[in-house]
Amino acid sequence: MSYERDLAEMKGQIDRSLSEFFQEKLSSVHDALTARVVGMIRDFTLNGGKRLRPIISILGHNIFEHEDGRMLKASLALELAQSYLLIHDDIMDESDMRRGRPTVHVEAGNIYASNPRRQKLGENIGIVAGDLAECYAHEVLMGSGFPPERLVRAGAELSSIIETTGYGQVLDIHSSHMEEFCQSDLMRLHLWKTSRYTVQGPLSFGSLLAGRDMDRNLSYYGYLAGVAFQLHDDILGLFGNQEVTGKPVRSDVVEGKKTLLILKAMEMSGESERKFIQSVLGNPGVTDDDLMRLRDIVVDSGSYQYSLDMMERLVSRAKEYLSRVPGDESAKDFLSWLADFMVRRSR
Amino acid sequence: MSYERDLAEMKGQIDRSLSEFFQEKLSSVHDALTARVVGMIRDFTLNGGKRLRPIISILGHNIFEHEDGRMLKASLALELAQSYLLIHDDIMDESDMRRGRPTVHVEAGNIYASNPRRQKLGENIGIVAGDLAECYAHEVLMGSGFPPERLVRAGAELSSIIETTGYGQVLDIHSSHMEEFCQSDLMRLHLWKTSRYTVQGPLSFGSLLAGRDMDRNLSYYGYLAGVAFQLHDDILGLFGNQEVTGKPVRSDVVEGKKTLLILKAMEMSGESERKFIQSVLGNPGVTDDDLMRLRDIVVDSGSYQYSLDMMERLVSRAKEYLSRVPGDESAKDFLSWLADFMVRRSR
Repeated sequence: MSYERDLAEMKGQIDRSLSEFFQEKLSSVHDALTARVVGMIRDFTLNGGKRLRPIISILGHNIFEHEDGRMLKASLALELAQSYLLIHDDIMDESDMRRGRPTVHVEAGNIYASNPRRQKLGENIGIVAGDLAECYAHEVLMGSGFPPERLVRAGAELSSIIETTGYGQVLDIHSSHMEEFCQSDLMRLHLWKTSRYTVQGPLSFGSLLAGRDMDRNLSYYGYLAGVAFQLHDDILGLFGNQEVTGKPVRSDVVEGKKTLLILKAMEMSGESERKFIQSVLGNPGVTDDDLMRLRDIVVDSGSYQYSLDMMERLVSRAKEYLSRVPGDESAKDFLSWLADFMVRRSR
Repeated sequence: MSYERDLAEMKGQIDRSLSEFFQEKLSSVHDALTARVVGMIRDFTLNGGKRLRPIISILGHNIFEHEDGRMLKASLALELAQSYLLIHDDIMDESDMRRGRPTVHVEAGNIYASNPRRQKLGENIGIVAGDLAECYAHEVLMGSGFPPERLVRAGAELSSIIETTGYGQVLDIHSSHMEEFCQSDLMRLHLWKTSRYTVQGPLSFGSLLAGRDMDRNLSYYGYLAGVAFQLHDDILGLFGNQEVTGKPVRSDVVEGKKTLLILKAMEMSGESERKFIQSVLGNPGVTDDDLMRLRDIVVDSGSYQYSLDMMERLVSRAKEYLSRVPGDESAKDFLSWLADFMVRRSR
């Protein structure tokens, strides 16, 4: 259990640094309106979040170089980039709540409570708020104190990670409307939107800041563990406890998300089940009974077990690649544990 | 006329470099959907635009150091950032057309021509497309070949410019809904959203890439010339020729923009004129006759002349500050001419 304590401790450090960052940012702001928007970005960022990406970037760094506080500072860039993407995501998905609180564009709409265009105005301020968080990401990186050559490479990597995530996002938006969306499209989506963004990218970001090129085996670890992470996320999305995940269990289904669970269930079950799945996917009127039946189909068809098996295989291969990376053993052990943790977490 | 030729030549070089950038980007993309979105960003970027910001950044660099091709490459960052902000702007303003063509989110909506949610899907892809253009901006900068120390400072400056513009954007969104919006709020808006973004920021970006801190007098030049640029833009917005500007003359009025022309006209005219202005501002049903009457009020009240006078004063003070900057005379002469050009252009 010591790794869970380490994880909580790293999260605590990151939270404190984020809080300091926003305190400084707010003290440089001289008008009430700007302060209100910056405050929304701060509250959104500080309210929950597992800090997985900064933590992984710190471990990626620590494999190759001892941490002296600079990496903690630089790692905030990934959490600020996460806020940026989530704020925009919530606008795209028209989500009103995240982590048990109103989303930024909803909060911003409250500024215009009596205005009939409050929703649109809130979304507009939300788009800008996301853009601001992205600026903050580059700022903390550039001010982290690493040698300029490393900063330049990590800065290019940060943009490249967000770029790949953007391509994944486009594919994601598109996927709900593609009749022919198949498992290989889905894997491409996971590699772009989760692996690169959540694991491989942060590891590479950390390695570059340690003055190293990304190790090929470490990269494989990142891609494999990232896909496993996503498969587990999809399981939580359908079977998870809403009270724990903070995310409505209906939302993946209502959004029409074609997860591996769904694709395989359609492939592995009969005509009537397939028709049922098609009728609930992307249907805003899905009932609790529908959800229950969908879960039954996913389990009975063998799709649930298929995802579990794939996750296990991915994690064990990820750890194999990781073991070939030359570097600090304790950082590697932590990452090895993390690969398991990512597919066992309850939120 | 030689400067106009120089301007056109620089624009030509920037256009060619942008075109090469997108060609390379497209050749690294392996699926049709991503290529389609990147193609939209390319078409949007290459279709028109004066390239003012990259040109000004090159001049800011050339005051202090001879250009050897690296600055041209780095300057593209400002044009890509411009695409990013405009793509998001068009979503916020719900603009269907820009520079005589469909805006990116409208174009993206066409992918889903038969889908009832085509508008929302187009906007979602538009948000991501803007985010991608921002990534490209950082990428070209980091790959421009300047020494790392300079890239780090210019990268932080690029983010800081976009950050300030974001605060300006928030104030802009808010301004239409502030009863008490006054001339000093407006000047703050112009300083953030135009001066910093269009003139002072690009000059600073160029100076940093030349290995210099921003010169204080050059900064004053940028802020003053930037406000003058904005005042002229507002005049074009109300009195300009739509065929030449490519922007509907109604749009500023329909958006409820409180320009200096409007604020001063309200201050300097009688009760009935004031009421009339309030009735058309932000009114989507504004007629051609209304616009004509609004123009008459702006001229007859003396507000038009007030803006012209202020512009002249700003430009002349800007040039005064510029003359105190130590550096290459020909780059300075060009900038001096540019200050005049920015308030005389017809589009």
